[in-house]
Amino acid sequence: MDKDMNVVIIGTGNVATILGKLLVSKGHKVLEVVGRAKQKATSLANICGAKPILDFSAITDTADIYIIAVSDKAIEIVAKQLILKNKLVVHTAGSVSINIFNMPGNNYGVLWPLQTLRKEMETVPPIPFVVDAVNEATYVTLLNFTKTLTDTVFRANDAKRIKLHLTAVMVSNFTNHLYALANDYCHKEALDFKLLLPLIEETVNRIKTYPPHTVQTGPASRKDVTTIANHLGLLKPHPTLQKIYHLMSDSIMENKPL
Amino acid sequence: MDKDMNVVIIGTGNVATILGKLLVSKGHKVLEVVGRAKQKATSLANICGAKPILDFSAITDTADIYIIAVSDKAIEIVAKQLILKNKLVVHTAGSVSINIFNMPGNNYGVLWPLQTLRKEMETVPPIPFVVDAVNEATYVTLLNFTKTLTDTVFRANDAKRIKLHLTAVMVSNFTNHLYALANDYCHKEALDFKLLLPLIEETVNRIKTYPPHTVQTGPASRKDVTTIANHLGLLKPHPTLQKIYHLMSDSIMENKPL
Repeated sequence: MDKDMNVVIIGTGNVATILGKLLVSKGHKVLEVVGRAKQKATSLANICGAKPILDFSAITDTADIYIIAVSDKAIEIVAKQLILKNKLVVHTAGSVSINIFNMPGNNYGVLWPLQTLRKEMETVPPIPFVVDAVNEATYVTLLNFTKTLTDTVFRANDAKRIKLHLTAVMVSNFTNHLYALANDYCHKEALDFKLLLPLIEETVNRIKTYPPHTVQTGPASRKDVTTIANHLGLLKPHPTLQKIYHLMSDSIMENKPL
Repeated sequence: MDKDMNVVIIGTGNVATILGKLLVSKGHKVLEVVGRAKQKATSLANICGAKPILDFSAITDTADIYIIAVSDKAIEIVAKQLILKNKLVVHTAGSVSINIFNMPGNNYGVLWPLQTLRKEMETVPPIPFVVDAVNEATYVTLLNFTKTLTDTVFRANDAKRIKLHLTAVMVSNFTNHLYALANDYCHKEALDFKLLLPLIEETVNRIKTYPPHTVQTGPASRKDVTTIANHLGLLKPHPTLQKIYHLMSDSIMENKPL
């Protein structure tokens, strides 16, 4: 049953939408899209060729896999409303335990897309999936299913998954915040943020080939305290940015293992 | 004289090497490569079809433009040794004043590649150039020359250029440091850093279309204090990383203009 699974998607947000598109593009059948908001459920159901379901008690029990793609806080509430027997139920969260599923009747697991996903995406980017399962038989089923969606599947238990989530926050959320701070600064100083885009892209291109610490450049890397002092002076009107500049530069200058 | 300029490159490092390759590929003639280390000067001269020069007093006075691509500290020393008349001399530094050229006999300016450049690069990435010049006539010459090298030329005086340099540090050096910290963490926790590469790429792809603050995601963005506390707990053995996580999360949660 690793090909052409029958799937129910619970949720209508970014992850649910992209997973829905991906599932359909890989030949799976989305039977139902479950959501509280009629318009959202209908909209995603239409995209997936599925039936919109607003009432949890009306969810079909004929699917092979039930994917709970709702906010972290809502996962447990949703799981408790799912009345199924011997079905595979997964959530899609990086930082929620697999043990949230206290459903003795079902097989369960985690299917976490290690990617930043937005509804509006026209093409689905490459998504590594981090998976976990309550037992080996379920793991094999989930693994075979996930392999139809991606080239990269990584098994991680709760402890490993939360660490991966932490690194994802660092390399995606924090870097995006640096972009946002720089964009804001450019706006205030009448500079064009778009000038920085080739540099931003190249910074990422490099680390596909070189370990990042081997390509570290900049004033802190060469201990150019004059330039650092000039920059910190310029940042006096921007105290948060100044603090971040200070800490990041110190950390680069430490140049030692964590 | 905006096409096929005769150029002397002073320096043999990353910027000198990539500029040399770029100049040749765009049809300019590199007459000489000037460096103190014979092997490096010869090597880059060979790449450029130029003559290696080790002695400053032997530099030709027949070139159209002299590009000083040496370390920030060495620019002034090099400039003082250049004995030329009515020649265009530029440096390539983001954070060095144009006024470092106290050479009444020459025209001078700045030609700063807003890009991270490495000798080893097989293909030259897109490079926006930030330029400045001592007077309008020199600016026009430099602008026309630079347009042969890139689609993106931006004029900035010292004050603007140092601010752009500051933003470049933020979006390139600091993000690379986050990648380095994450890579180190992965190594210590037996996780595969390469799993994060699609996420890193997509984070950059997004900001080509959306302003970065509009696509901010993650625990801090949704004020998920539970996950933040869990992550900070995991980072206890990594105090620098913990401090960075704390500060970046606080800054994201502030969610207000600088």
